[in-house]
Amino acid sequence: MNYQFARRMSNMPESFIERLFSLSSKPGVISFAGGLPSADLLDVDGLKSAAISVFEDDGCEALQYTTTDGYMPLREYIAERYNKRLGLNAVPEEIRIVNGSQQCLDLVAKIFTDPGDCIGMERPGYLGAIEAFSLYEPQFATVGLSDSGLDTEEFEDLIRKRNPAFFYGIPNFQNPSGRTYTPEIRKEIGEILKGSSTVFYEDDAFGELAFDGKPRIPVKAYAGENGIMSGSFSKIIAPGMRIGWIYAPAEIICQFDSAKQAADLHSNYLCQKIMARYLQDNDLDEHIRKITSVYSKRCRLMTDLMDDLFTDRLTHTNPEGGMFMLAGLPAGISSLQLFERALAEDVAVLPGVPFYAGKGGLDNIRFNFSNANGETIKTGMERLDAALKSLGA
Amino acid sequence: MNYQFARRMSNMPESFIERLFSLSSKPGVISFAGGLPSADLLDVDGLKSAAISVFEDDGCEALQYTTTDGYMPLREYIAERYNKRLGLNAVPEEIRIVNGSQQCLDLVAKIFTDPGDCIGMERPGYLGAIEAFSLYEPQFATVGLSDSGLDTEEFEDLIRKRNPAFFYGIPNFQNPSGRTYTPEIRKEIGEILKGSSTVFYEDDAFGELAFDGKPRIPVKAYAGENGIMSGSFSKIIAPGMRIGWIYAPAEIICQFDSAKQAADLHSNYLCQKIMARYLQDNDLDEHIRKITSVYSKRCRLMTDLMDDLFTDRLTHTNPEGGMFMLAGLPAGISSLQLFERALAEDVAVLPGVPFYAGKGGLDNIRFNFSNANGETIKTGMERLDAALKSLGA
Repeated sequence: MNYQFARRMSNMPESFIERLFSLSSKPGVISFAGGLPSADLLDVDGLKSAAISVFEDDGCEALQYTTTDGYMPLREYIAERYNKRLGLNAVPEEIRIVNGSQQCLDLVAKIFTDPGDCIGMERPGYLGAIEAFSLYEPQFATVGLSDSGLDTEEFEDLIRKRNPAFFYGIPNFQNPSGRTYTPEIRKEIGEILKGSSTVFYEDDAFGELAFDGKPRIPVKAYAGENGIMSGSFSKIIAPGMRIGWIYAPAEIICQFDSAKQAADLHSNYLCQKIMARYLQDNDLDEHIRKITSVYSKRCRLMTDLMDDLFTDRLTHTNPEGGMFMLAGLPAGISSLQLFERALAEDVAVLPGVPFYAGKGGLDNIRFNFSNANGETIKTGMERLDAALKSLGA
Repeated sequence: MNYQFARRMSNMPESFIERLFSLSSKPGVISFAGGLPSADLLDVDGLKSAAISVFEDDGCEALQYTTTDGYMPLREYIAERYNKRLGLNAVPEEIRIVNGSQQCLDLVAKIFTDPGDCIGMERPGYLGAIEAFSLYEPQFATVGLSDSGLDTEEFEDLIRKRNPAFFYGIPNFQNPSGRTYTPEIRKEIGEILKGSSTVFYEDDAFGELAFDGKPRIPVKAYAGENGIMSGSFSKIIAPGMRIGWIYAPAEIICQFDSAKQAADLHSNYLCQKIMARYLQDNDLDEHIRKITSVYSKRCRLMTDLMDDLFTDRLTHTNPEGGMFMLAGLPAGISSLQLFERALAEDVAVLPGVPFYAGKGGLDNIRFNFSNANGETIKTGMERLDAALKSLGA
């Protein structure tokens, strides 16, 4: 049949995310391509107890419709944690609950972007953001990222010349690169934004996963009304519950509410209550220490092995937290080629290509280190070595 | 600050839904304005048992990321029920899980609508649909609804002249009117659609709530590739879990997947598994019989009281199921006026206004009968009588 699809649907980049999931589940394949938290660190028993308490104390309400803004005790918890941990001045009225922070990408683009408008983001940048934003038919303008963070000269030039409604970035342990902005660069971004009408949209999905346990002052602390943040329980508690949030000035929250309500009325209330109860009954800091202690070891093992095995063939970033690192390939080897060769050796890595809104990513690949134990990382790296060798590297 | 919001945000109709929720919760007010299922019919214990089983048997997987399409056993259940109950030929590959069927409204409009495109819908039509669609900046074209259903002459005229990408309707126990399309009208719609490139988007959120327990053959059965359906567990199991679905031909599902993935990766996996487990361990038909037995009595009580109290002042529809009825006001009394007067008497009703994409709704009001017991309905109707009298009616 000849369906009349909207123009935006022809604008979609080829989706890698779904393909990732199928690859990760193929038996025998070691996958560094996905972005899953380590399954053995999920606190199934703790969440089960929280669920039982919610059903017993509050089941009837948890199963009913609720308001779009989200469960107040959960928003209070998030605001308090921001203030205690990051020195912000958040109030729950500036916090909204969403279906994982991916939903913020969709709704923020929805409230800010007309077809043809400029959206600013990092180069390379999060592929899920590129997918979500693409449906609003923007022009992407990207700013380079180095080991110290965003290129502020390029950033200032973009803000002054293109005046985007928002710029999207991940200052902590970025996806895909694992890079972190320096404190100086954060401050500088705040100064550049002053007096502009651009919002810095700070995705902090990974901020709690600092290997040294220390919080980094967010760009929001310098950007004030020019800053919004999103966060998520997916990386620190459970992605399957789809609970994330946005933190933004009242004027933006007001528009966000209209978009969220039209999108799905409200987020899963049962899981909002279970999450709030879990946070009340458990020590989140202790749980996060457990996770980061495992992830930092896995990250270290992976970079050590890369240094040993691939000395002059692969460069890599040195993440201070999070779940990902980016490796640069030797000249003459394309990431798409390596992707295919690696798969033939039963190891999956992710070419940089989908992380570029424009052209790019043929010379790098992303590695996930959170979801493989030591033995698996070793075997995977050996297989990758074989793949590289078979390509003459 | 001078934020650069998208043009679509100025396109939003004033939102009544949020206001409804605040009204319903004001102490002492009897609300017929909302759309909540009856809280005392929620099976808290059954869902608690299902949740415990999921945590015990499958907790680790339920808490992880999953694929965009949704949990296969749940999609199989939905397809099988369609086939058994409605004589359709659905396969799980044509079913996708969403965050309540409200999310279908957003995503269907997203994949089909460019700014300025025509969207067809009923007059009056579901206000949540008007809100969701409005963000895609369509031109609305509406078709009148009578007690026998859609005006097929007007419908044919719309399809031939405007060729909309889709037409949205609720053939069973419509929101706001409680009306149901006759079998003849369903068949006629299917015939009109033949050879056109318009999709009939059949929202069947209330179809299971037939007071006589009998399924109505859906428009989809006649429309084939021109038909899509959405459904929901919100009205029959629990709205707080936000689990609905879409059923559509493969070509549409493919576009829908891109939009859903960009919107939030996937729906709450924990609740998908709890729902599937609940359906496996419980008799849904028996549970639905319990609900409809209560709702049909409440509906009957409400129409009987209207006939007794308001004889020549209010007309009303005669719902065969669902949760709503529509009442016509006497000449010279506006629904907005009555809304305010009724609130002063501590009873909330919903003016028809937000159910019209264009002008309309000053001469009718919607009543919800699912969420008030007999005593409350009686008292509420007496208060409404006082409000009408104080307006000279």
